[in-house]
Amino acid sequence: MLCKICKAKGKREKAVIFIRHHKLALCKNHFLEWFEKQTLKTIKHFSMFNRGEKIGVAVSGGKDSLSLWQLLTEAGFETVGIHISLGIGKDNYSEKSLKLCEKLSEKLNRPLIVFDLKEEFGYTIEEIAKLSGRKDVCSVCGTFKRYLMNKIAIEENLSVVATGHNLDDESAVLLSNTIRWETGYLGRQYPVLSEREGFARKVKPFCFLTEKEIVSYAILKGIDFMETGCPNAKTATSPVYKQALAFLEHKMAGTKFRFYKEFLKKAKPLFEKEAKEEYNLTPCKICGMPTTANVCSVCRILEKIRGVNAKSGKN
Amino acid sequence: MLCKICKAKGKREKAVIFIRHHKLALCKNHFLEWFEKQTLKTIKHFSMFNRGEKIGVAVSGGKDSLSLWQLLTEAGFETVGIHISLGIGKDNYSEKSLKLCEKLSEKLNRPLIVFDLKEEFGYTIEEIAKLSGRKDVCSVCGTFKRYLMNKIAIEENLSVVATGHNLDDESAVLLSNTIRWETGYLGRQYPVLSEREGFARKVKPFCFLTEKEIVSYAILKGIDFMETGCPNAKTATSPVYKQALAFLEHKMAGTKFRFYKEFLKKAKPLFEKEAKEEYNLTPCKICGMPTTANVCSVCRILEKIRGVNAKSGKN
Repeated sequence: MLCKICKAKGKREKAVIFIRHHKLALCKNHFLEWFEKQTLKTIKHFSMFNRGEKIGVAVSGGKDSLSLWQLLTEAGFETVGIHISLGIGKDNYSEKSLKLCEKLSEKLNRPLIVFDLKEEFGYTIEEIAKLSGRKDVCSVCGTFKRYLMNKIAIEENLSVVATGHNLDDESAVLLSNTIRWETGYLGRQYPVLSEREGFARKVKPFCFLTEKEIVSYAILKGIDFMETGCPNAKTATSPVYKQALAFLEHKMAGTKFRFYKEFLKKAKPLFEKEAKEEYNLTPCKICGMPTTANVCSVCRILEKIRGVNAKSGKN
Repeated sequence: MLCKICKAKGKREKAVIFIRHHKLALCKNHFLEWFEKQTLKTIKHFSMFNRGEKIGVAVSGGKDSLSLWQLLTEAGFETVGIHISLGIGKDNYSEKSLKLCEKLSEKLNRPLIVFDLKEEFGYTIEEIAKLSGRKDVCSVCGTFKRYLMNKIAIEENLSVVATGHNLDDESAVLLSNTIRWETGYLGRQYPVLSEREGFARKVKPFCFLTEKEIVSYAILKGIDFMETGCPNAKTATSPVYKQALAFLEHKMAGTKFRFYKEFLKKAKPLFEKEAKEEYNLTPCKICGMPTTANVCSVCRILEKIRGVNAKSGKN
């Protein structure tokens, strides 16, 4: 297959990727150009951030977040990497992840902020989940990561945190919320979550790009990334929705893209009023971060497990 | 597995079916009782029809519509079967279908109205689709069946037409409308379509019962039905959505049921205003049935193919 853009210019260049839902075969250079353009278009369309802002990029060590960090930096944005080290020992998962983030930090010559859960709190994420009596590590991990990313952004005066969520992630979450008709969540699902008192803005510049496109970008850009997923991820239900969408995508190319895009355009506005619950945010009595309760959920979990261990004499 | 209801009464009776999403194992008698109760509950909940009304049952010869006819008749409703004979010759599909409807008509001692497309219009459904230049036979067939069912109901003074659409059908249509965010269709999808001038009420009493439950009912009731689907159905896209839902159902029992039920409760009201387009209905200049144009879509198709054949000397 030949690159469509080269062909239009009368040149013969072999395509390295075929983007099925856009019917687009592209060579390395034109793919990288297209990929960057798509990302910048999304940033502009949703007014995610401006040139003057300092952008925190939440980096896990995976293809999505590392690609995002490199792309934003090369596009001239002032970036800072933020990495939460979770202390997952299996296959040296957390250690390897941190190293890959540090490697890209050096390559891009941009600072990396590292928060080590075990060092700061005394427990790894798996210990926190276990001691607090939660079976679903992924849900506890999500709560801690969202909390810490926001806390670090606020402390470091970063007005915005960018995450590597891609089209496969966003459409799977959308399908999950739709199949259960979680009208409140549907009213909130959006590529931008505005800043409020105590909350940095959250943005997803890769929300219209597929996993396949991002992995291609990462490889063509020579980014070293974690090739295995988190060893705990098998407990999450999102793979089920990803598989259902992959099946629909296989049968009808472009399903994921249209499903998410049309949702934002036509359906999300209808759900919006369902999402507007009135709730008062007050500073958490322990950490000072905004919460609807007296003590925020992260501090509650930490208090609980510290209490448990104090009683059993471990702490 | 033992019947749950018999067990509760201290009896040991082998279950013939396990209804996974209700976690209910039932013997023959208790299953039939449960099935009838569910149907009557749906009829009552959505005010589908009352005892005094004469009900047209759209029968194709398949398990769903024939089971519905038998159930409604046995429950004491005054029913009339309506069958559209489409002239599908492959595997003698239409001939066999008609015979099965006639057989049940005799068994139930209820009248059957038969409309033969070839006799009345001069063409089978496949000829109509081909001559009118439509590749998708299923869509033309749907248009003709809806038109004729309504026309016959109006002519026969039947205030309501009941169809055998089941949970698998309804949830697949819902998924298809959702994946494409067809907000107008989503605002109209409901187990009851109210009557208006020139339109009989349309109801779906089996909308919460699965294919598996209905086929079990048909077999246990000794109903003879077409075991093969329509030979043209492979061109329809709904199997793709049915397969996607079957996958989700397999992974998370009850998905289809909750997806459809929660939609009706929580999401449909939000889409309703999207469905309220103002359109004026006037009688079709040819057949007199209500239409938004001068000539209704069925008459337009028939005029077109009669014109084509007149020109080519075939008619």
